[in-house]
Amino acid sequence: MIVEAREISQAVIGRLPRYHRYLGELISEGVERISSSELSKRMKVTASQIRQDLNNFGGFGQQGYGYNVKYLYHEIGKILGLDKEHNMIIIGAGNLGQALANYAAFEGRGFILKGLFDVNPRLQGMSIRGVPIRMMDDLEEFLKETKIEIATLTIPKARALEVANILVENGVKAIWNFAHIDLNLPEDVIVENVHLSENLMKLSYNISRYNEEHS
Amino acid sequence: MIVEAREISQAVIGRLPRYHRYLGELISEGVERISSSELSKRMKVTASQIRQDLNNFGGFGQQGYGYNVKYLYHEIGKILGLDKEHNMIIIGAGNLGQALANYAAFEGRGFILKGLFDVNPRLQGMSIRGVPIRMMDDLEEFLKETKIEIATLTIPKARALEVANILVENGVKAIWNFAHIDLNLPEDVIVENVHLSENLMKLSYNISRYNEEHS
Repeated sequence: MIVEAREISQAVIGRLPRYHRYLGELISEGVERISSSELSKRMKVTASQIRQDLNNFGGFGQQGYGYNVKYLYHEIGKILGLDKEHNMIIIGAGNLGQALANYAAFEGRGFILKGLFDVNPRLQGMSIRGVPIRMMDDLEEFLKETKIEIATLTIPKARALEVANILVENGVKAIWNFAHIDLNLPEDVIVENVHLSENLMKLSYNISRYNEEHS
Repeated sequence: MIVEAREISQAVIGRLPRYHRYLGELISEGVERISSSELSKRMKVTASQIRQDLNNFGGFGQQGYGYNVKYLYHEIGKILGLDKEHNMIIIGAGNLGQALANYAAFEGRGFILKGLFDVNPRLQGMSIRGVPIRMMDDLEEFLKETKIEIATLTIPKARALEVANILVENGVKAIWNFAHIDLNLPEDVIVENVHLSENLMKLSYNISRYNEEHS
């Protein structure tokens, strides 16, 4: 059965990575089948929510029989594009760039780190997990030789837009942006923002509200 | 005029950090007043959305007069709890923990880094921006002496729940969780998750969908 990604609602898509994570854990525990009620207990969502979400993947999970864990894991992975390889580079090889480069789990999901770039000459010649840190001057040449799908931006916001434009001009189609700025790029460029300080503000908002309610 | 946080809807709250960022940029550019239509052009949201959102902060922004940038920046900051100091520690002083510790902008918004903790003895004696890296064995003692509101978890998921429980038992009320696991903690503990690999999956989903639509 072929599952068409476009048929599935955005709300379900947003929940898929979490299903994928729990199913991956079940596989590593050697669990082959799981009922929606067992999965419900683990994930702390209702069994009916799980049944509705997973019905998008066809008629698995018959009453009393449960879901085939491995099958579902792979189907969800396909929807998320994890069955394909995505060549990736990281621009900015400071602590955050190095943390992402060292996160080997990405590689297991098809995100292949092809290069790291920085302006700091002291980083030249270093490499992380076998991937050399190159200087920014070499970026355009590199992009002409190697097809890169995703560029991760872990550079200060002052230079982020300028660098993003170079990336887009050289065929990069998706940007994972950690710079604290909205990149205004052509509409066909896919941008996923991680604004950590805005995330921290949400935390402090919730602390303030909690303190007000309990004062 | 006193603005009560609880009156403002969650949807507006979710947009406040972005307003705060843009208003901060306007301040640093020396802009004192801005109309909703000018702000609309900058932020690429409709002027009516902006007027609706900012009406929550009282009757500023009269027709033809515009918003008082500094006033609005501070009011939004108050709602977000940025007018108060939040003592913070970081558990896990690897690349990601160091990246967050080095991000001086947090300090400017009231997030005061009081300590870093790690299990790696090679990090002992090091410090980041003057804050020493301590060993995990010293955590409980430290929490008894220093009131900590927020703990940032940048440790592998295998140890995250165990450490979170120690934090909660010792009075930490909020956890900024980068470990790739759902922490099941008492309901009065505020948890904000940053699941980076799930964010990356959203990017690869959008790439797959784009490729399907253009193939």
